[in-house]
Amino acid sequence: MTVTAPRGFRSAGIAVGLKSTGKPDLALVVNDGPVRASAAVFTSNRAQANPIIWSRTAIAGGPARAVVLNSGGANCFTGDFGYDTTRLTAEAVAHEIGEHEAERILVCSTGLIGTGDQAFRDKIVKNVPALAAALTDDDATAASAILTTDSVEKTAVHRADGWTIGAMAKGAGMLAPGLATMLVVITTDARLDDGALDRALRDATAASFDRLDSDGCMSTNDQVTLLASGASGVSPDEAEFASALAAVCDSLAAQLQADAEGSSHDIDIEVRGAVSVAEAIEVGRSVARNNLFKAAIFGNDPNWGRVLAAIGTTRATFDPYEVDVAFNGVRLCHAGAPDRPVEECDLTPRRTHVEIDLFSGDHTATIRTNDLTHEYVHENSAYSS
Amino acid sequence: MTVTAPRGFRSAGIAVGLKSTGKPDLALVVNDGPVRASAAVFTSNRAQANPIIWSRTAIAGGPARAVVLNSGGANCFTGDFGYDTTRLTAEAVAHEIGEHEAERILVCSTGLIGTGDQAFRDKIVKNVPALAAALTDDDATAASAILTTDSVEKTAVHRADGWTIGAMAKGAGMLAPGLATMLVVITTDARLDDGALDRALRDATAASFDRLDSDGCMSTNDQVTLLASGASGVSPDEAEFASALAAVCDSLAAQLQADAEGSSHDIDIEVRGAVSVAEAIEVGRSVARNNLFKAAIFGNDPNWGRVLAAIGTTRATFDPYEVDVAFNGVRLCHAGAPDRPVEECDLTPRRTHVEIDLFSGDHTATIRTNDLTHEYVHENSAYSS
Repeated sequence: MTVTAPRGFRSAGIAVGLKSTGKPDLALVVNDGPVRASAAVFTSNRAQANPIIWSRTAIAGGPARAVVLNSGGANCFTGDFGYDTTRLTAEAVAHEIGEHEAERILVCSTGLIGTGDQAFRDKIVKNVPALAAALTDDDATAASAILTTDSVEKTAVHRADGWTIGAMAKGAGMLAPGLATMLVVITTDARLDDGALDRALRDATAASFDRLDSDGCMSTNDQVTLLASGASGVSPDEAEFASALAAVCDSLAAQLQADAEGSSHDIDIEVRGAVSVAEAIEVGRSVARNNLFKAAIFGNDPNWGRVLAAIGTTRATFDPYEVDVAFNGVRLCHAGAPDRPVEECDLTPRRTHVEIDLFSGDHTATIRTNDLTHEYVHENSAYSS
Repeated sequence: MTVTAPRGFRSAGIAVGLKSTGKPDLALVVNDGPVRASAAVFTSNRAQANPIIWSRTAIAGGPARAVVLNSGGANCFTGDFGYDTTRLTAEAVAHEIGEHEAERILVCSTGLIGTGDQAFRDKIVKNVPALAAALTDDDATAASAILTTDSVEKTAVHRADGWTIGAMAKGAGMLAPGLATMLVVITTDARLDDGALDRALRDATAASFDRLDSDGCMSTNDQVTLLASGASGVSPDEAEFASALAAVCDSLAAQLQADAEGSSHDIDIEVRGAVSVAEAIEVGRSVARNNLFKAAIFGNDPNWGRVLAAIGTTRATFDPYEVDVAFNGVRLCHAGAPDRPVEECDLTPRRTHVEIDLFSGDHTATIRTNDLTHEYVHENSAYSS
């Protein structure tokens, strides 16, 4: 139970043949109320998949009742036919759950760009009745049906005093700001309105998914949806709810990082002493996107020079000859010059902590990334398919 | 003969033990006049090596007489001791060639950041007399002494009516805008003043090295220096000289691309139909820096969806559903939807041509990059050392 941990929700996941492996690849999450409130954030990539175009317009017209998600094809750059597939999918779900407006159904897709032909459409639309028939408030399949190259399911549940948050996520590559290649559905039985949900969701994603930058690549299909049923009857304090939601999103972001394609290190780049959070993020992201740094970590090489070279490409306020850099607690660079011997630093554990102190201000941010490995190249070249 | 192809120059390259291989690692290029004019461009990385700090100030005070270059250590983030090493090197060269001002000697270094201890200093400074003694107008060693992980020497010579341009370059990784990890020395016996040289050099580097983006990583040590001796007695038309210099820089940029660390493809990303050259460059660079695209090319996979996803991250003027994308002459995407079957496209040749038409304007730019390979990861992880 993940998205059905809160009261007022049913979900399902079934196999319809989109994945060549025969594993579940179509999922549905339905809010049964009594309240229907929602919020969503979408990829900031200007090249947007058909389900993003549909869902963005749909939620602007009113709260979402359900989310239908498929793996095995992104339905992105598939023309008008692809858009019609998204619309037909929403219409089929609306019909099955007794919803008058198809626009109350959000659609998410993930997989290869350019995939969205007649066979793709038929596998989804013709199987919506079977999907709806499988809906249950005790579901354990939806979280697996949205996976692509992920090796494990990503879920999180937060239980508060009388109300609950449940969540499921997918994402294993193309993880970068403006979200990641990821689909997330979060449910709650707390009684909150759209405005409160939207504020809490934007804050939570900005501090979690937006600071995950596995490979610098931004997806065309990202969507994070939050549905509230009000079924608990409890209206929590907005700040308390926001804090719980942030914890759920942070847990999912850590799970996404840990399962990033081909990675052998989870790298947390903590930037301190910045004049603003924005500059701390800019510095952390420039290091996270530096292929030479990422390859060095793969080789267990604490190459602090590549960290400084990456910082130098930013517009952040700092003096290169004031900066400290530590790897896993060992300060290798002090005031822009060599400090402790690199031999003192052990990078063999998967968790890697890089601390950068700019000594320019009081702000801090941590960017999560991964190393650049042979396996990453392998999985993302044609040899993997 | 490369930098000594024009009259009025001598050069030398010797081995002083900076490279563990025992290969040449210290080079010197001297302008013997009768004229002394020069121009230089430097890395735009804000983290700058000691030789960059020295040379930038030195050339601002007057034209350069000579350039001394070492491989085997970047002398970057090596503190005041490292800066003194650069100054002592310039002073030693000035003494040997009878130059009163040490500031007339530019210094370039390349190699590992953080390398610049007493042993490093001694190997360079104590060997300057031997280096000066090896100077000749028929030198064939300087171009090899500046190499690091390069597999071949990069040189170019342009012979015009009565005057000549000669050039040598190094660079095999960390190739990105604001120049690359590269050192370039260009000589000419044309009679031109500092202003004309500076204008021609900035235009030529902007259209060549600045559009080479092998791995998105910007170096701390880049320097391109142009020295003019006037020894031909010919004052060429400024436009003619600029055109010849642009051709020399373009040749060197192509040679750098062809020798990029671990690469198996040279990828030219030609962006057409942009509203400005700046937007064409932005689009081309976003594709060139997309690791998923680069890994796909390594696998001979013409993954046009990753091209569109990368374009979508830019602020350029375009409609994703108007864009055409062709790989090696086969249009795989038309108006944002699949066109020819990917099977028609052969990516096995090393040279790869990606054409993107934004249909938004009349401007074009080509960005050169390389694929992301197992060998790139290997060479840049500790396993390679």
